[in-house]
Amino acid sequence: MQCGLSPIVGFRFSLHPMTNDFISVIKGALQETDTSNVWMHTDDVSTVIRGKQVHVFNVAKALTLHAAKTGEHVALSGTFSAGCPGDTSGDAYLDKGDNVANTDTTKQYVSSQFALYPMNNPNYMDVIYREVERAKELGVFNESMHYASGIHGDIHDVFAFYEETFTHARSEEHKHLVMTVSMSINSPSHGGL
Amino acid sequence: MQCGLSPIVGFRFSLHPMTNDFISVIKGALQETDTSNVWMHTDDVSTVIRGKQVHVFNVAKALTLHAAKTGEHVALSGTFSAGCPGDTSGDAYLDKGDNVANTDTTKQYVSSQFALYPMNNPNYMDVIYREVERAKELGVFNESMHYASGIHGDIHDVFAFYEETFTHARSEEHKHLVMTVSMSINSPSHGGL
Ligand SMILES: [Ca+2]
Repeated sequence: MQCGLSPIVGFRFSLHPMTNDFISVIKGALQETDTSNVWMHTDDVSTVIRGKQVHVFNVAKALTLHAAKTGEHVALSGTFSAGCPGDTSGDAYLDKGDNVANTDTTKQYVSSQFALYPMNNPNYMDVIYREVERAKELGVFNESMHYASGIHGDIHDVFAFYEETFTHARSEEHKHLVMTVSMSINSPSHGGL
Repeated sequence: MQCGLSPIVGFRFSLHPMTNDFISVIKGALQETDTSNVWMHTDDVSTVIRGKQVHVFNVAKALTLHAAKTGEHVALSGTFSAGCPGDTSGDAYLDKGDNVANTDTTKQYVSSQFALYPMNNPNYMDVIYREVERAKELGVFNESMHYASGIHGDIHDVFAFYEETFTHARSEEHKHLVMTVSMSINSPSHGGL
């Protein structure tokens, strides 16, 4: 059990293409994405990637962008985690450098929602309010809602916000941070379930 | 701001049918489910239901079961929440009785994963370990994994576990509880992303 401000970040997620061809959309996204900087494991419900924060966010964005470029309606749901006292130091790929492997800058509108859960932190509501302010300052805030905040814009701006927020919402004193993200792309109806 | 052990439970979720007919699967599930005991709002990314715990879990299960009965591969991702200090008492439907509106007992295998986030609780890891033990005792535990625990079985047993865990993982002292759930149904490949 490693209890410092662990450099290991994880993202457990599912990518859901709403099409009969969902398998080929997912396989295509995996083929187009360089995942060599993260440890990755897939089971029957979700996929987890682990490694340095910079690579976890880079791979998450690249997989999502490649799936989006098919033009199909795709949804991403997942949880970023760091600093869990029960976490292990294995499966971490911490020997990787800091240069990101995926650099596709294609623009893509995404609508998303996130929630921050700073664990065992009496001031966690302050952290949440501060990070929502950050979204407003960065121009990616969409709307307030029960249990989450709406974040939207170009996929690169949205993921940049999420990575920045994930950095700022944890500290050496409060290491364990969880952030849920749901994202909808190419939605045919902005009133769909 | 209401800081007692609030009876208001919320579930923000997305239901993702992996088919070209995703809209009709979702609309059909909504038509087949009696949602009159919960407040419900849908936006372009997710749907939120709020009300008494018993009704929130009943409606969540019924929507999922009806979508599953189409035979399509469907996924559910969502977050149950209670006791957030920033929550409001509106949109709560707390005047409803306790009789559930949806009683379809059709069996349906589901594979799922969950994570518990008891907020502002120094002993939160103990709560998590205890609830994983509960899953083992109830026979719905599947496997351990990074950042989550695998839960599977018949949809009625799985939702009964989730509701029981959601009750036991919060207390008057530690009111604010979050539980994420991801569920995969009718998956054509148990090795899919
Ligand atoms: Ca605390």
